[in-house]
Amino acid sequence: MVASIQRVALVGGVHGGELTGVFLAKKFQQFPLQIQRNGVETVSLLANKKAIAMGRRYIDTDLNRAFNPQDLENPQLMNHEQSIAKTIARRIQEEKIDLIIDLHSTTANMGLTIILCTSDPYLLRLAAYLTEINPKVKVLRYPPNQNASYLRSLVKFGFAIEVGAVANGLLDAKLFQETEDLIHAILDYIEALKQGQPSVTEANLTSYRILEKVDYPRNKYGEIEAMIHPQLQFQDYKPLHPGNPMFITFDGKDIFYEGESTVYPVFINEVAYYEKGIAMYLTQKEKCGFETFTQSLRR
Amino acid sequence: MVASIQRVALVGGVHGGELTGVFLAKKFQQFPLQIQRNGVETVSLLANKKAIAMGRRYIDTDLNRAFNPQDLENPQLMNHEQSIAKTIARRIQEEKIDLIIDLHSTTANMGLTIILCTSDPYLLRLAAYLTEINPKVKVLRYPPNQNASYLRSLVKFGFAIEVGAVANGLLDAKLFQETEDLIHAILDYIEALKQGQPSVTEANLTSYRILEKVDYPRNKYGEIEAMIHPQLQFQDYKPLHPGNPMFITFDGKDIFYEGESTVYPVFINEVAYYEKGIAMYLTQKEKCGFETFTQSLRR
Repeated sequence: MVASIQRVALVGGVHGGELTGVFLAKKFQQFPLQIQRNGVETVSLLANKKAIAMGRRYIDTDLNRAFNPQDLENPQLMNHEQSIAKTIARRIQEEKIDLIIDLHSTTANMGLTIILCTSDPYLLRLAAYLTEINPKVKVLRYPPNQNASYLRSLVKFGFAIEVGAVANGLLDAKLFQETEDLIHAILDYIEALKQGQPSVTEANLTSYRILEKVDYPRNKYGEIEAMIHPQLQFQDYKPLHPGNPMFITFDGKDIFYEGESTVYPVFINEVAYYEKGIAMYLTQKEKCGFETFTQSLRR
Repeated sequence: MVASIQRVALVGGVHGGELTGVFLAKKFQQFPLQIQRNGVETVSLLANKKAIAMGRRYIDTDLNRAFNPQDLENPQLMNHEQSIAKTIARRIQEEKIDLIIDLHSTTANMGLTIILCTSDPYLLRLAAYLTEINPKVKVLRYPPNQNASYLRSLVKFGFAIEVGAVANGLLDAKLFQETEDLIHAILDYIEALKQGQPSVTEANLTSYRILEKVDYPRNKYGEIEAMIHPQLQFQDYKPLHPGNPMFITFDGKDIFYEGESTVYPVFINEVAYYEKGIAMYLTQKEKCGFETFTQSLRR
């Protein structure tokens, strides 16, 4: 019943400017013992070194959309990110990685978000445990990654950690330390589940499931015509009720949320998503109860 | 005694990712009447359109270091920013601009900062007036720009506005509106001084004068070895006393400020300054009293 995780990859710098993950991956490369546990070996990788050196999200295309298996097999696809995706995928396979923790950061106020694309019970229980020990942890559930283009799609047990709000290119010590603590809690959990016989209990997991994306209002040339409303800026995971302001035009006119039910926006005003046509995602808040494990895991 | 300002240039996008200025300049190009005043004509310019389109600070080199008069005359210097510096300088001259307002933003918590490189009494009085009507306005005094490499060095009356904290590539509605209000207050002041006979009074100006820059602790390869301390992050313009923590290593060790007197750090953790070797500037707080003008200038 308990998944047998033996090898973990901790990956920073899939996006070059997201320094929390970059510097955590570097630290763990320098002090690899800090991420070892009994029966669980963890390697720390820096994914896109060229983009990191240039302080950019990517050189040619978004690396975290480059892991589709067919694309990885296609010798025609050889731009910078397509090439390193092939190298990373090979390494993940050769090193028999079971679980990937993909470290990201965001300009949205996402706190410490665990992003799951699957309903795998092992990962859901892990997520429930993490929210229980730290109220800043949120769980965001994506639809299944149909074309498996994310890094985390390379393995059965993969998820991303998104921390924010933090500017690209900026190293925020508090978020660095909070993310480091979260990584240790994850590794402790994996170790404890392998080692012990944790007792089973009922647990609740509050998570946020993505419903749809919302773009900025734009003119016919594709230029944005309004900004995130000041009342919504940095309000990720807070309820947005029908009639609440969402955007404000450059002339100061409010644009309201016209949906019929309360939603919980996330990734509000993420810089990298302007080009993707995403001002925010709307989510619904869900509670699910399931059996989980209790055990004193605190370090 | 009162300077005769007739033509003002409002410049956004000297750095491509600093969207507050970019979108304000665009707005005023669309609605030029909003920045006209009696006897004072204002033009709105977008400086580095290619960098704006690419969402980057610059393409080849920092545009705001490219306005040295000898460099402008040198036909050898033709990289992207060197070329557009020549075009902008020519336009500022041809349009007989008296005063430049150069709009920037920063990831440091600088509020609404007026940066002055001169002790020109006209600009000091303007700055004193602005701090009086809005406590969020701060006045930062740079040493004279010896080699006149800044955009604002092209004219006698030039200054920059730095607003933050805001991530590059992010449009923050509140800062956008506050910056817009500040621009209107500046133009109103210029107009009022030309129009009326303002009465003279004693005024105090609190300003912050740059003493020195402080770099991040680095190893022999130039890689940073510590982060801005969480207690100092976002504390721009707050007192830093001898013995207070400044940095924290990746292992959690505090590094303290060892100066002998209290200073006021600014530009703390500005992303663009990592490459310039600047973690922050230390400033001293000064109060100067001088004669200024009173007049009801509020719109």
